[in-house]
Amino acid sequence: MDRQYDFAALEALLKKRSFKALREALLELNEVDIAEFLGLLNGEEAVLAFRTLPKGVAADVFAELEPETQQLIVAAATDAELAVIVEDLYVDDAVDMLEDMPANVVKRILKNATPEMRGLINQFLKYPEHSAGSIMTAEFTDLRPTMTVEQAIEHIRRTGEDRETVYTCYVVGPRRRLLGVVTVRSLLLARDSQLVSDVMEDGVISVATGTDQEEAVRLLQRYGFLSLPVVDAEGRLVGIVTVDDAVDVMEQEATEDFEKMAAMAPSEKPYLKTGVFSLARHRIVWLLVLMISGMITGGILGRYEAAIAAMPLLVTFIPMLTDTGGNAGSQSSTLVIRGLAVNEITLRDFPRVLWKELRVSLLVGVVLSAVNFVRLILTYPGSEMVALTVALTMLCTVIVAKTIGGVLPLIAKACRMDPAIMASPLITTIVDAVSLVIYFAVAHRLLPL
Amino acid sequence: MDRQYDFAALEALLKKRSFKALREALLELNEVDIAEFLGLLNGEEAVLAFRTLPKGVAADVFAELEPETQQLIVAAATDAELAVIVEDLYVDDAVDMLEDMPANVVKRILKNATPEMRGLINQFLKYPEHSAGSIMTAEFTDLRPTMTVEQAIEHIRRTGEDRETVYTCYVVGPRRRLLGVVTVRSLLLARDSQLVSDVMEDGVISVATGTDQEEAVRLLQRYGFLSLPVVDAEGRLVGIVTVDDAVDVMEQEATEDFEKMAAMAPSEKPYLKTGVFSLARHRIVWLLVLMISGMITGGILGRYEAAIAAMPLLVTFIPMLTDTGGNAGSQSSTLVIRGLAVNEITLRDFPRVLWKELRVSLLVGVVLSAVNFVRLILTYPGSEMVALTVALTMLCTVIVAKTIGGVLPLIAKACRMDPAIMASPLITTIVDAVSLVIYFAVAHRLLPL
Repeated sequence: MDRQYDFAALEALLKKRSFKALREALLELNEVDIAEFLGLLNGEEAVLAFRTLPKGVAADVFAELEPETQQLIVAAATDAELAVIVEDLYVDDAVDMLEDMPANVVKRILKNATPEMRGLINQFLKYPEHSAGSIMTAEFTDLRPTMTVEQAIEHIRRTGEDRETVYTCYVVGPRRRLLGVVTVRSLLLARDSQLVSDVMEDGVISVATGTDQEEAVRLLQRYGFLSLPVVDAEGRLVGIVTVDDAVDVMEQEATEDFEKMAAMAPSEKPYLKTGVFSLARHRIVWLLVLMISGMITGGILGRYEAAIAAMPLLVTFIPMLTDTGGNAGSQSSTLVIRGLAVNEITLRDFPRVLWKELRVSLLVGVVLSAVNFVRLILTYPGSEMVALTVALTMLCTVIVAKTIGGVLPLIAKACRMDPAIMASPLITTIVDAVSLVIYFAVAHRLLPL
Repeated sequence: MDRQYDFAALEALLKKRSFKALREALLELNEVDIAEFLGLLNGEEAVLAFRTLPKGVAADVFAELEPETQQLIVAAATDAELAVIVEDLYVDDAVDMLEDMPANVVKRILKNATPEMRGLINQFLKYPEHSAGSIMTAEFTDLRPTMTVEQAIEHIRRTGEDRETVYTCYVVGPRRRLLGVVTVRSLLLARDSQLVSDVMEDGVISVATGTDQEEAVRLLQRYGFLSLPVVDAEGRLVGIVTVDDAVDVMEQEATEDFEKMAAMAPSEKPYLKTGVFSLARHRIVWLLVLMISGMITGGILGRYEAAIAAMPLLVTFIPMLTDTGGNAGSQSSTLVIRGLAVNEITLRDFPRVLWKELRVSLLVGVVLSAVNFVRLILTYPGSEMVALTVALTMLCTVIVAKTIGGVLPLIAKACRMDPAIMASPLITTIVDAVSLVIYFAVAHRLLPL
């Protein structure tokens, strides 16, 4: 995976101040790789290397840079240079960048943008986080229904330079109302004289600016689109969400689910870039909550002190029982949470999930308790009733754990809570308490306590 | 998310046998939605509704159907109908379908394919699972370097109908060697008389047929490509991976990680379509392994029977200590596993991860143990030494748990194992044992046992 280009050679050129050779070597690379190279340099070097890039490439590379490097370059750039970069950025990249910059830098950038760009940026900054509006881009290709195919292709050729994607064009009517969609593919495959309105598909699938970004990504994925139009409250086309942004959103949403399912507040930044205090803060709230639940479990255990004193052997099976219960429950909850996240499971499937988990848990529970029974009979000859107690508890715990694990995420969903919080840590804590209660209930019935 | 079209109205048309009206109503929908509708019908109805679709749409809808519905339609189709469907499928969709079909159905489909299609399908079926070859498509647009832009656009217009994506064209030389890449966008923006070789970019980023699909997807994502070329051992272009397939792979890989991290063998099928026995089998192996580890923990606990008998109160703090340790460790391991999966963390970051987790765990540990100390002092007045024992154990456990959690996935990676197995269940089991040892070591020192 480590696609290491010969960054050392590039750095040598930079150290020798061979800017012309450096520029040529850099232009051999993809802008993503150039950005990675610049990120490895110190501030002054990064600015020098960035300045060797020609105008068009510079903006593309700039969009790919880490916020820290962007800030260095903005700080070093003259107002004129800044104006060129900002004007060449796509609005969504510009907005992403500004969200990470200190206020004085934002001010300087906006000052150097054209009034039109400034208007767009300000509008985009207003969309709520995680909304379709916040990830859309304003650079799309729009056509009129009355154009011919030839005129449409001509229009794309004339204006395509500034557009993030030219492959899906949107047909708009009066007051920018979205009427239809036409792909460059269908334009190329049509006759020159046909009208755009004859080639386009109507009934366009679109989202509103306030729609959750996850919903927008889900639609892009479901239909295999390259882009999805975003309309405002009046049905006017204001932007598009492109598939490359969707891929990033998917990854980000999956990461958030991983974090929530491990009892952490989700963070925006990658692990290595998050500060120690921030990491600690994201983790401590849930740990405290779960610690209190752990105290409750301890309290339950405390109620059985007499039983434990009478038969200390019982204690040694507690970790195995609670661990297995927790693991069995986590398995079920993970599958259901993920199924809900990717829309394979919906609330209507509640009875199916319940019925499935009951049968699976019966199978798994029988096997685990049988293994346990045989082992205990062999390890503690003469303690058949203890073996039976542990085996029965194991069976009941697995059944209860899997049922709780399968059902709680669905209940959370029904209550409009995030199902991801019903994951391993919470399930484990609940199942711990439940399995202890089962254990001592069974023990009191079967053993002389 | 539930984009429910008026499927009831469509079903009514079908029941009335109004095939013409049904066909018109269906053609208003996207093929993905048509496929969803067919999936809701019973076998006979699904076949009837499918038959109303015009030829071109039928293959697109067929590709989107669930395997069960595909089989019904294949079983009902005449050989002539089958030949039409198979010929119109993209090779990758055909291969996906065949992988899910029983052998006799596969035979019948291959019999009705053209020799060319049959050859491609057989070749594709040979690529190993999860390789770039297994997810690529053979329908791409290839150009010659000596074509003019005008000729190239003409070529795309003539051949584009059969191509999965026409937006990125690949330039091939003698013996199909991959020379360069050119987007339709740059063709449209170039002058008609320019040569393809002047417009194309060379130094194309490509993968081999045997490359892991995850690597291919990572490259598509990194560079924001719409498609990525796949070459064979001789550097000949044999297919492309498109971004819509990449999105599906990303989702599938994330799901697999969720499953592994919850101690399950990953499954290929969605939860609701997986049988009870298969689900149980996927879950039981890890549960058995972890149960045995739980027994070891129990054995450790057994060694402290005397201490427990002397001070039964000690037992009541065990669930809280082990749970909190497990949760703290899972948090760290989840972040590192995910960081490794999305390439934000590499093996070289080992010292940084270790140092970060040490500091975070110190912060978190101090807070948790302080909270505990105060609570215990208030709940059990006069038992200051017990409170101190629990608080000290909490601090040590959190530090050890987070260090283990942060480091084990990296060690797994270094040993070329899947880091995802070093997740919550395994970490919890390890930390359980460790925290018990710490607890009783501290207790023996501080308390009169």
